[in-house]
Amino acid sequence: MSIYYTQEIHGPYELINIGDLQLEEGGNIPNCMLAVATFGELNSEKNNAILIPTWYSGTNKIMEQVYIGEGRALDPSEYFIIIVNQIGNGLSTSPSNSSGSLKGARFPLVRIGDDVRAQHKLLTEHYGLQSLALVFGGSMGAQQTYEWAVRYPDFVKRAAPLAGVAKNTEHDFIFTETLIEAIESDPNFKDGFYNSRYAVSEGLERHAKLWTVMGWSTDFFAQKRHKDLGHANIRDFVNDFMVEYFAPMDPNNLLRMAWKWQRGDVSRHTAGDLPAALGRIKAKTFVMPISHDMFFTVNDCCAEQQMIPGSEFRPVESIDGHLGLFGTDEEMILEIDDNLKELLSIN
Amino acid sequence: MSIYYTQEIHGPYELINIGDLQLEEGGNIPNCMLAVATFGELNSEKNNAILIPTWYSGTNKIMEQVYIGEGRALDPSEYFIIIVNQIGNGLSTSPSNSSGSLKGARFPLVRIGDDVRAQHKLLTEHYGLQSLALVFGGSMGAQQTYEWAVRYPDFVKRAAPLAGVAKNTEHDFIFTETLIEAIESDPNFKDGFYNSRYAVSEGLERHAKLWTVMGWSTDFFAQKRHKDLGHANIRDFVNDFMVEYFAPMDPNNLLRMAWKWQRGDVSRHTAGDLPAALGRIKAKTFVMPISHDMFFTVNDCCAEQQMIPGSEFRPVESIDGHLGLFGTDEEMILEIDDNLKELLSIN
Repeated sequence: MSIYYTQEIHGPYELINIGDLQLEEGGNIPNCMLAVATFGELNSEKNNAILIPTWYSGTNKIMEQVYIGEGRALDPSEYFIIIVNQIGNGLSTSPSNSSGSLKGARFPLVRIGDDVRAQHKLLTEHYGLQSLALVFGGSMGAQQTYEWAVRYPDFVKRAAPLAGVAKNTEHDFIFTETLIEAIESDPNFKDGFYNSRYAVSEGLERHAKLWTVMGWSTDFFAQKRHKDLGHANIRDFVNDFMVEYFAPMDPNNLLRMAWKWQRGDVSRHTAGDLPAALGRIKAKTFVMPISHDMFFTVNDCCAEQQMIPGSEFRPVESIDGHLGLFGTDEEMILEIDDNLKELLSIN
Repeated sequence: MSIYYTQEIHGPYELINIGDLQLEEGGNIPNCMLAVATFGELNSEKNNAILIPTWYSGTNKIMEQVYIGEGRALDPSEYFIIIVNQIGNGLSTSPSNSSGSLKGARFPLVRIGDDVRAQHKLLTEHYGLQSLALVFGGSMGAQQTYEWAVRYPDFVKRAAPLAGVAKNTEHDFIFTETLIEAIESDPNFKDGFYNSRYAVSEGLERHAKLWTVMGWSTDFFAQKRHKDLGHANIRDFVNDFMVEYFAPMDPNNLLRMAWKWQRGDVSRHTAGDLPAALGRIKAKTFVMPISHDMFFTVNDCCAEQQMIPGSEFRPVESIDGHLGLFGTDEEMILEIDDNLKELLSIN
């Protein structure tokens, strides 16, 4: 285990054992550990809890840094905020930190629904919660947010899926496949049984370039936003930002998350009937796509929003596209904050 | 040489020797052969010639099938239409049909400017032309169209760049790099010295998937256009259409074209000053981006149009995105036809 997946980089977080987790694809994770970071205090009514799941490659740390703070919507002086790292992200139980029959490429296939059931177990058994004031997540965090709202409609009072969809699109499935194949095609990947994950650096580099192309937007580069972010040219931006970001991550971790991402689909609860699944949602829901997102597009998110009773369509504006999630565009983050404040004020 | 790069598939075309071609990057192509298909007759005033260069992976055949016809804008009963295959596309002099020091991976680096000088030589020396009524091309054909209008401003009376830019964008450069690396990372590619190009099928398959993601649009798949085109699902569309399309092509051919595509830039004539380069254009120019193009975007094309004296911005609408160029959206093709008719009517 490298220094990357540690308290030093991503802490503080607590490792909480939720026991055995039966998986939708079969098999189970014994003693499934969730890495959890909390902020603020649970009130006596236990009605001020907010759940934040994490996105592909993300951890609790970036959610804390970009979205939580005094005076903001997600204010620890008002709310008990629980960030749960998704299974496979390197902090919660993952290929990189498992041993024996779960180690590395042997790690089982995990679905969005497995994460959400694991989180439900954590919230009910460990924190004694019976409701959430809000579930808020971006990208794969939005997939988990939708899953929560459909699977546990009475538990979730408000939902704010940001830059993500309830049922993944066919286009996005293929995009994610190109990410997966960029890694798996590296001869040093060896079907996941690599000696060191740094051996797969070429595959990870190609994977980072694909993220460069689809993660931001054409306007982002046309308007030289990469220079605003401190990179002299696009080559430096690719090497010093995108490649560097993914370089310390474990390929098997990324691949298990990518597999999960491809198959996010709340209509699994209703035999493929998406309107029926989204029709179950009782949470007051604000659907927030990012204007220039190249794969979780405004149109795709809008189509789903229209199936959610009482929901509101709240697109946020940024030429930073999907990876504006990283907090690179302050104004977009303010827009998100305003939406979350408004959503939290609705009873 | 496989059956793919033959008269049987792409003919009829004529191979015309334009002599030695000195290359901008150094070196030369001795006895450079251009594969040329013509339609209609040159009039006695020699003022009815139209030039059509080709795009990445394209040949004269698709330009004929999609854009030329009686009663259409590009009408062979009115115009002498000359389609010139770009160098490296497998029909004109290319890695796949060269021998000795030009064979395969040894083939020299060719720029858009080299193609345009070769075409100029062809038009002046072989056909005795001193002007073109129109240059029309899509994608890399648009890059050549811009190069023509800037390099030979008095020669080109009208220009219609479709779904392409005069100076390639940084974003597009990286997208093309992902295409290149999809092929080059195949262990069977062997730095271009593969035994058979079918050995590189895995790399070509990844390359085809990247085209699937960026070549069409998210709305194309959301609205099930792949079904309209006769494919039951996206997997069949990827395998039976995208992978099949590129499978018979030679990797070194594609890579030389991709290198050229990345570096298309008319501001090379003006020490990097794009407004100065585009300011040279005397051709009446209609700039035609495709509404849903994911890499040669409407915004990028619009910014350039504004630098071209007397030009008009004529975006065409299609959720098919960039690969609408293939003629998959009849209404968009009609829109292009109308624009070309109008452009050709301007004196």
